[in-house]
Amino acid sequence: MLLLRVDLAELKIKKENIPSEYRLFSGRALTSRIISDEVSGTCHPLGPFNKLVIANGLLAGTPVSSASRISIGAKSPLTSGIKESNGGGNTAYKMARLGIRAIILEGETKTKSNWYILYINKEGAKLIDGSYLENKGTYDKTDALHEQYGKNIGIILIGPAGEQLSITAGITNTDIEGNPSRYCGRGGLGAVMGSKRILAIVLDDAGTSPVKPVETDNFKYLLKKYTALIRSTPQTAEGFPKYGTAGMMEITNTIGALPTRNFSTGTFEGAAKINGQALYDTITERGGEGASTHACMPGCIIRCSNRYPDKDGKILVSPLEYETIAMLGSNCDIDDLDVIAKLNYICNDYGIDTIEFGCTIGVLMEKGIMAFGDTKEIVKVAEEMQKGSYLGKIIGAGSIIAGQVFGVTRVPAVKGQGMPAYDPRSVKGLGVTYSTSPMGADHTAGNTVRLNIKHHLKDNQVEISKNAQLGATLFDSLGICIMVGAAVKDKNLLAGLISSHTGLACSEDILIEIALSTLTTEKKFNNSAGITSVHDRLPEFFYTEVNPSNGVAFDIFDQDL
Amino acid sequence: MLLLRVDLAELKIKKENIPSEYRLFSGRALTSRIISDEVSGTCHPLGPFNKLVIANGLLAGTPVSSASRISIGAKSPLTSGIKESNGGGNTAYKMARLGIRAIILEGETKTKSNWYILYINKEGAKLIDGSYLENKGTYDKTDALHEQYGKNIGIILIGPAGEQLSITAGITNTDIEGNPSRYCGRGGLGAVMGSKRILAIVLDDAGTSPVKPVETDNFKYLLKKYTALIRSTPQTAEGFPKYGTAGMMEITNTIGALPTRNFSTGTFEGAAKINGQALYDTITERGGEGASTHACMPGCIIRCSNRYPDKDGKILVSPLEYETIAMLGSNCDIDDLDVIAKLNYICNDYGIDTIEFGCTIGVLMEKGIMAFGDTKEIVKVAEEMQKGSYLGKIIGAGSIIAGQVFGVTRVPAVKGQGMPAYDPRSVKGLGVTYSTSPMGADHTAGNTVRLNIKHHLKDNQVEISKNAQLGATLFDSLGICIMVGAAVKDKNLLAGLISSHTGLACSEDILIEIALSTLTTEKKFNNSAGITSVHDRLPEFFYTEVNPSNGVAFDIFDQDL
Repeated sequence: MLLLRVDLAELKIKKENIPSEYRLFSGRALTSRIISDEVSGTCHPLGPFNKLVIANGLLAGTPVSSASRISIGAKSPLTSGIKESNGGGNTAYKMARLGIRAIILEGETKTKSNWYILYINKEGAKLIDGSYLENKGTYDKTDALHEQYGKNIGIILIGPAGEQLSITAGITNTDIEGNPSRYCGRGGLGAVMGSKRILAIVLDDAGTSPVKPVETDNFKYLLKKYTALIRSTPQTAEGFPKYGTAGMMEITNTIGALPTRNFSTGTFEGAAKINGQALYDTITERGGEGASTHACMPGCIIRCSNRYPDKDGKILVSPLEYETIAMLGSNCDIDDLDVIAKLNYICNDYGIDTIEFGCTIGVLMEKGIMAFGDTKEIVKVAEEMQKGSYLGKIIGAGSIIAGQVFGVTRVPAVKGQGMPAYDPRSVKGLGVTYSTSPMGADHTAGNTVRLNIKHHLKDNQVEISKNAQLGATLFDSLGICIMVGAAVKDKNLLAGLISSHTGLACSEDILIEIALSTLTTEKKFNNSAGITSVHDRLPEFFYTEVNPSNGVAFDIFDQDL
Repeated sequence: MLLLRVDLAELKIKKENIPSEYRLFSGRALTSRIISDEVSGTCHPLGPFNKLVIANGLLAGTPVSSASRISIGAKSPLTSGIKESNGGGNTAYKMARLGIRAIILEGETKTKSNWYILYINKEGAKLIDGSYLENKGTYDKTDALHEQYGKNIGIILIGPAGEQLSITAGITNTDIEGNPSRYCGRGGLGAVMGSKRILAIVLDDAGTSPVKPVETDNFKYLLKKYTALIRSTPQTAEGFPKYGTAGMMEITNTIGALPTRNFSTGTFEGAAKINGQALYDTITERGGEGASTHACMPGCIIRCSNRYPDKDGKILVSPLEYETIAMLGSNCDIDDLDVIAKLNYICNDYGIDTIEFGCTIGVLMEKGIMAFGDTKEIVKVAEEMQKGSYLGKIIGAGSIIAGQVFGVTRVPAVKGQGMPAYDPRSVKGLGVTYSTSPMGADHTAGNTVRLNIKHHLKDNQVEISKNAQLGATLFDSLGICIMVGAAVKDKNLLAGLISSHTGLACSEDILIEIALSTLTTEKKFNNSAGITSVHDRLPEFFYTEVNPSNGVAFDIFDQDL
């Protein structure tokens, strides 16, 4: 496995060996390490000194289920700190087949007139003129690239939002069917890719050989064990495949953690119309191209993704995930899955993070720019955003900036990033994660909501969050989906898979050490970027306003953190 | 002299004695001290825990020339740090006659439906319903208040920008003629006043007695000396009165420090059409209500202000200052004083900082939102801003946010605040001040441009800036105009005036100690607000791009600061 370094100033590409001290680093551990080593904390995130790093995991491309997530990292234009955002799709898998562990985009093109496609196949990598794709939505871009390079490719790409340096732009990855839907959505990394003038990376693995383990027998033995665990654990075997992430709404609505009308309460009267059951029923009733279970990456046996069809059975969007449903649904007072699906499609096509979009719309609704629940207006505004309206530009800059532009003080965001679909007053462990994670408000940075604890009480939540953050970092650093964590508790099993696949010594202790050092590296980077413990806090209103659904405010303060 | 504390939550007002340790604190020293003592660095600047502090100087209301500036301070919604912005006008003077050293607005009203006027006369202070003034421009508001309370009042007020919590909104003060034109413009303090739901403070000093010194003879003797110095120094006696601050353009254009087309160069081909001479000639030729020299506050003998008339001799705006002329002129490629005056009027009426406005328009022009030099479009956009357009909302949020919304990386701002009219590559001492001042990019925080040094060389600039910052803080902390500094070098003369006026022991050492401790207090507050030495830097492009007018980049780095 190699590093592919793309110098945009010279338009040159070179392959490098992975430094030996990084050989067990992959996913988030690798993106954060390279950024920390090579990027100054004080550089402009959209200038020549930032770098975009794309890395897969140590087990990418293997038959290990759910192990081909793709990590993308940079100094974030949204948080000003270090960022890693990971997603599914077929791109990490194809990178592995092409022998690539990480791609580094660095420097700045001499002119800002051209756009490039980075095309990689078994012969090598090259930069191709991609200007003809400028300003096309991600779906049209994908169609054009499929037409040119065949359907059997992986594509990492940005939409118009990324090209226009919108600081909430995401980077999307094609799924198994070639649908550009698997977003590394958070932190505005699409703008960093846009600042590098690369609008698509095409991974053409035609003619490559499958990724092979070093110790075949041992690997097979451990793989069997791993697969059996996933197949025998109720959550990964039944819950996730049936309801997907949308099953979460049943939990959050019950405990008062479902953001409703810009986090003004935690239970939503329309929840039953948009929850996991409603989603499942709608998809199965409509049939057609719809699918209530779907693998987002090659070889995933959990299959928690879905394909959401319209009334005629044609795909409206795929997937429709809990975060999007809640942030565009209850948070905006919308109880209509079709409207949410349409908005999700628009965001995907424009290339913008749905969580930040929903969070920002909630802020605008609080201000009365549009009314809560006004589905017509929100769709109209989203469509105008695609055409470049000024309001759309404000939305594309995220919730914090929308709040500053319109004078809204109730903005649910931490370190510049809008909050995902859990009210931190009702899931205090996650509230601690929002406060302290180097990533800003991020549910994947250490979610505690599935633990069997009293989430609205403050007891032990700091410790609980710490463990959750460590666990999340561990999975992110292996490119393994955090959903696997529900089934595979034994980290030595993961270490064994890595050892037998790579031939490198690995153990639970080593994996924990890597996760810990990754968090430390990230915190250190953030310090050098001017983000200190002063920024480890929630917005003021979570401390001063109780959540009416359970009567509690957030009460874990500085001295506890 | 007393503190007037206005509790908006309870709608109660009380008078307090000034704590004895604060008796020599006035102006910026007092606003920064109270904020530092009473406001948490992490509070939301537009929430219930911020406070707006308005203070005059120790010599306010006396016949000491130029000693009735008004300081306004708060945690800034623009910089997130502590802010003091001071201006001229008649309000500090009238506060002194009413026996008030400082007004503190604190808390948050229980509902957000009413607006208040804080009315103060010799009988006391009260909150009056001011909702009928909502959304009126500052000129209309002033007319209405004059009609109600007579012409002989002082008014501290905000425009629609402040009401709407625009984070670049200023607070204006009436001048001697009652014109609401003397802005405490920087740092978005108008939004803090708006968040307190107070749209005007009326100071009615009818029936009050003149402010009297404790030691009349000594005071008179020193006052004579002070006045003689101002009258005999060429700058204060001739240069400032004739050309006002606009005389600066001759200097900056010569040394390549005049921001031109969003700081892309430092000399402007149209400078001769908008410089001090052009301004003087236009005003004198047009005659009518115009005046090339004008006192902004009672008793000022420097009279560096002006009244700018249209072709028919009717006042277009008063005053027209260098910062506004340069930021709306050369920085936007506009060489027409009438257009600049019109834009200045619109900004004043809407209640927004002209420096930030010009800086933001420069950023938008760089992006092509409007063309450099397109006077029609800029006036149209400004007029739409008054009506609440989305583009106007973006402009009202300042240059940093405009850059983030539109993906512009060349944004001339430090600590959130747009740069005033001096290119830091060409005035490196001021560049150090921009970098390190607790106030963000602020020319009044320690300007070095009038010193007889090689401004484009880095030698000793850190030391030079340090002295300039200390000097500026000293004058700001006395409510004395920094223009006086050109004539009165002997701080013991200032100390003597204070001693003889107040009866308190004072000396040059004490004044320097107060200035130093003010800077330290401000830095400490900023640290508690998450602003560290990492934020002590200019935007990246000043280090990487040379200023074409003199071939130098900014080259004073972290280790030097």
